[in-house]
Amino acid sequence: MNVNHIYFSNDLTNKERACFETGIKLGALYHILCGIPISSNHETIKLIEKGIESAILCQPFVQSVKIELDRSKILGGKSSPFDYDEITGKIIRAEVAIQYENIDVVAKIDWIEEMQYPLMFIEKITENET
Amino acid sequence: MNVNHIYFSNDLTNKERACFETGIKLGALYHILCGIPISSNHETIKLIEKGIESAILCQPFVQSVKIELDRSKILGGKSSPFDYDEITGKIIRAEVAIQYENIDVVAKIDWIEEMQYPLMFIEKITENET
Amino acid sequence: MNVNHIYFSNDLTNKERACFETGIKLGALYHILCGIPISSNHETIKLIEKGIESAILCQPFVQSVKIELDRSKILGGKSSPFDYDEITGKIIRAEVAIQYENIDVVAKIDWIEEMQYPLMFIEKITENET
Amino acid sequence: MNVNHIYFSNDLTNKERACFETGIKLGALYHILCGIPISSNHETIKLIEKGIESAILCQPFVQSVKIELDRSKILGGKSSPFDYDEITGKIIRAEVAIQYENIDVVAKIDWIEEMQYPLMFIEKITENET
Repeated sequence: MNVNHIYFSNDLTNKERACFETGIKLGALYHILCGIPISSNHETIKLIEKGIESAILCQPFVQSVKIELDRSKILGGKSSPFDYDEITGKIIRAEVAIQYENIDVVAKIDWIEEMQYPLMFIEKITENET
Repeated sequence: MNVNHIYFSNDLTNKERACFETGIKLGALYHILCGIPISSNHETIKLIEKGIESAILCQPFVQSVKIELDRSKILGGKSSPFDYDEITGKIIRAEVAIQYENIDVVAKIDWIEEMQYPLMFIEKITENET
Repeated sequence: MNVNHIYFSNDLTNKERACFETGIKLGALYHILCGIPISSNHETIKLIEKGIESAILCQPFVQSVKIELDRSKILGGKSSPFDYDEITGKIIRAEVAIQYENIDVVAKIDWIEEMQYPLMFIEKITENET
Repeated sequence: MNVNHIYFSNDLTNKERACFETGIKLGALYHILCGIPISSNHETIKLIEKGIESAILCQPFVQSVKIELDRSKILGGKSSPFDYDEITGKIIRAEVAIQYENIDVVAKIDWIEEMQYPLMFIEKITENET
């Protein structure tokens, strides 16, 4: 079913729709990750990244997802039962590739030190020949 | 700081950026709501809606947020301690208005029965004179 | 339905069950709060607290919930669109009162500076005459 | 640091503390899982389970975690971009083993059809010789 013309504004271009879909995925990914317990153990980090990547891959128009939490900022080595960390915007780094119709988008989440902010941004948008 | 030209693709129009920002908010709103305990009590529903509305209002470019959970689908009247519900995509309905530069966007989340899907869509996008 | 004897170990005392139920509520409350956008605006904080309090009140055996986010640690005054914060363990403070059968429990979440940890603990447990 | 005697009620037995810690983990696990996108693809389910298991394993006193989402209830085979599911209480099934001092606890989350409720319960509690 092409839901474009039933619910979406007819004024929307394919590029605009692709940008909207990209935003949805980054917003979802970010809020799914927030608060998940984590430690600096390499295997633990890897498994959490892979788990959430595969969840986001279920969503519409997602071509690929790469989560790469900032290991340099993850605390916790289980020196005591309470020695672990939780995922916040400071350590979330991810890249998603979205394809909607003839449009390809590559977008990222990264912690921008100067802004003290986990910025979500579109790095590249491409309109393919149809 | 105008982060547009540092991190964002220079190919992005204001409309495309506005659509991206709109998607982020809907993705965030949806995943913040999922799993929150709720009952059919009017006051409870109202307080949860207001709480998450005011959280989403903190995010960039958000002009307004209206969450209106589908009361007809919320179970639970506390006839027993276990008689309550949890928020899922089936009951989430919301509208956000985003303003980015000269662009206004109105977007919604609604459960679409025929799709069995909580669709996020842009209902209206307007380019204002500058 | 008394689910105690069907699913729960028969070895469990009322006090132990009450402690288990208390833990569930604190774990839930904490992970629902994590990642919610917030600003230092008094009204915003109040509405988020009230919203999640009323959600947790829907859960079994909860007598009262008081969320009091640590205002001294919440950043963000909307000096720019990106000037807001997100809820993490550092600012979550809450108190729940649970009643299970003849047992009353008061428990808290608080950020313990020396541990650098959002500790959940039972402050008081009372066995009432039956 | 033994935080027992600073923050916790002195009236609490090791068994009660163990039950409290168990509840925290189940409450956390449940609310972390809620809302995560998922499809019926075996590999996807497995990766999500493993990811969240390894996150919960970071928490204090957790000996083991086994998440086994109810495959018979997970929809979505990607027949269309919108053909996928999200994790809710209906499909969450998990078992955690907790050790606190000389106490071992095994607890579960399972959807109880007769209650229409995702029950968290302690199946076994053991006091070991010290």
